Amino acid sequence: MAETPAATLPLFHRACLGEHVERTPIWIMRQAGRYLPEYRALRERHDFLTSCRTPELACEITLQPVRRLEVDAAILFSDILVPLPGMGVDVTFNPGPHLARTIRTESDVRGLVVPDPRESMGYVLDAVKLTRAELAGRTPLIGFAGAPFTVATYLVEGGGSKSFSAIKSLLFSAPAVAHELLGICADTAGEYLAAQVDAGADAAMLFDTWAGLLSPADFDTFALPYVRRVLLRVQAAAARAGRVVPRIYYAGNAGGWIDRCRDVGADVIGLDWRLDLDRARRSLPGLTLQGNLDPAVLLGTRELIRERASAVLDAAGPAGHVFNLGHGILPESDPDHARFLVDTVRELSARRAS
Amino acid sequence: MAETPAATLPLFHRACLGEHVERTPIWIMRQAGRYLPEYRALRERHDFLTSCRTPELACEITLQPVRRLEVDAAILFSDILVPLPGMGVDVTFNPGPHLARTIRTESDVRGLVVPDPRESMGYVLDAVKLTRAELAGRTPLIGFAGAPFTVATYLVEGGGSKSFSAIKSLLFSAPAVAHELLGICADTAGEYLAAQVDAGADAAMLFDTWAGLLSPADFDTFALPYVRRVLLRVQAAAARAGRVVPRIYYAGNAGGWIDRCRDVGADVIGLDWRLDLDRARRSLPGLTLQGNLDPAVLLGTRELIRERASAVLDAAGPAGHVFNLGHGILPESDPDHARFLVDTVRELSARRAS
Repeated sequence: MAETPAATLPLFHRACLGEHVERTPIWIMRQAGRYLPEYRALRERHDFLTSCRTPELACEITLQPVRRLEVDAAILFSDILVPLPGMGVDVTFNPGPHLARTIRTESDVRGLVVPDPRESMGYVLDAVKLTRAELAGRTPLIGFAGAPFTVATYLVEGGGSKSFSAIKSLLFSAPAVAHELLGICADTAGEYLAAQVDAGADAAMLFDTWAGLLSPADFDTFALPYVRRVLLRVQAAAARAGRVVPRIYYAGNAGGWIDRCRDVGADVIGLDWRLDLDRARRSLPGLTLQGNLDPAVLLGTRELIRERASAVLDAAGPAGHVFNLGHGILPESDPDHARFLVDTVRELSARRAS
Repeated sequence: MAETPAATLPLFHRACLGEHVERTPIWIMRQAGRYLPEYRALRERHDFLTSCRTPELACEITLQPVRRLEVDAAILFSDILVPLPGMGVDVTFNPGPHLARTIRTESDVRGLVVPDPRESMGYVLDAVKLTRAELAGRTPLIGFAGAPFTVATYLVEGGGSKSFSAIKSLLFSAPAVAHELLGICADTAGEYLAAQVDAGADAAMLFDTWAGLLSPADFDTFALPYVRRVLLRVQAAAARAGRVVPRIYYAGNAGGWIDRCRDVGADVIGLDWRLDLDRARRSLPGLTLQGNLDPAVLLGTRELIRERASAVLDAAGPAGHVFNLGHGILPESDPDHARFLVDTVRELSARRAS
């Protein structure tokens, strides 16, 4: 699939491909964010959407944690709801997302479009190019999108929710409309992620934050086929570009249907802290696992961080692991604890590998 | 353990004990609640706390779904936070719970007391006696309490939460204080549930809504031992009374550590819809399972309800199953759909058993 010989690939890529590596690579979900004083300083001058939509700002925010933490991958500063305006639904953040309208009927769905990412998300593609140039091959850049079920959930609920009864009601009382909506979300995410790969993203990640709302059977019906559709588009884009572009699927709250993640078409499955990686490994032979330290552990002492990081490395085993938190770093985390985690994982995993 | 011969026990009890039964018993979490017009009518005249604290009202609300749905068990109308004022923390509901103060430090915890349920929750015990008299042995009555970790989470967060960083921060930065708090919550729930058994409750259920926030290792540390402590108290109360009182542990979002539920000391494990009962069965041999239809299925068509109820019965297998939703019935549910579910489970399971 790749022209690049595996030996010259970055550590992050080699771990994603399941190779035995000299140490476990680490990056941190939401590593560019509110826990960093340099991020808060920048956000005092620019609001969230402006920061996403201005390539120079998105690039700068993306690079902040790379400088401070020396993580093994950068992830583009953006949001999974960035494609919505192009689809026909405006979004504001304060700080949670609020959609200008909800999508709940057949005619609502008919009014949506699959946007051309070069037209409506050109600023993201420019940010990918700019950031990749700044990183100059030293650190790979992960592009991302929201998984179809998760984005559909936001479109139907109109924002966050507690009971998620609007999306569930759509799935169960109007499944044909739900499938049409999910298809549009899949095509949007597929085009968008493929465009990020074309623009130079070194890896592609799909975030399925809300898939954990589904029973195993409903995951099979309403999530899995659409994730596959997106990741096949990414695979095609990578093949066209002749580059190794690992595909990462983040499955939030997947304990009940972890075995199903085998079939989503990803190289790497990202997991939260609610299940042990050794159990996930048995369900997902041959796939690399990403995670899965409880983000709240960073609120504890350094002793605890070291002990828990070590337990994650033990559960992950000798290969096929990218260290990460199980969910985004909490805003109240001490950046020095994040750096301590990176150094600790580096040290402990190198010792295990030698 | 029991003086009552098993043959004379109610269907619900025999299913809880794992016997092969003539049909699968069914009740519905939050079966007394907002989806019922008769409940809304009563609540127009009495607020939530008054309804909990007035035995005649709590009894009437408890009986409403028994009359309308003819479920196989009643569950006392109350709330898991009812013991808080007796512990020293006032609560209001609008509609979510808001605590008058949070418990986050060693001195906060020292200020809590384990209340005598006969003093501060006497109205609940009166409601148990009154309701049991009204039910006259036709339908068993389930008493309940919040599990220690879940109640501790409310005490620390002061209400609901999105990130639950306050409780996690306590667990990870001050584990000794957390254990002291969990011990108080366990003693409170133990005394309270035992008092409900003394007052005549036919079964005892512990709700651990928030245990799914925990990693498997943290479940072992911060939830499991305290659940055991409560359920041992219940077991002792039942033995003293010479009655069979099934112990039910509801584990929300337990996919990642379902195997651990083997050791909580319950007869029945209640599960949400996020995992299949056949997988849970393999992890929990010898225990009865309660659940686990997605509550949102009741928002769909009768065909869907029938199809999904049938799938739950198939996954549950021939014995050791109490049918229920995987979480509380949604307020927007049609009461006729709830009744249809009860009738369908009765019909389908009787056919399977014959």
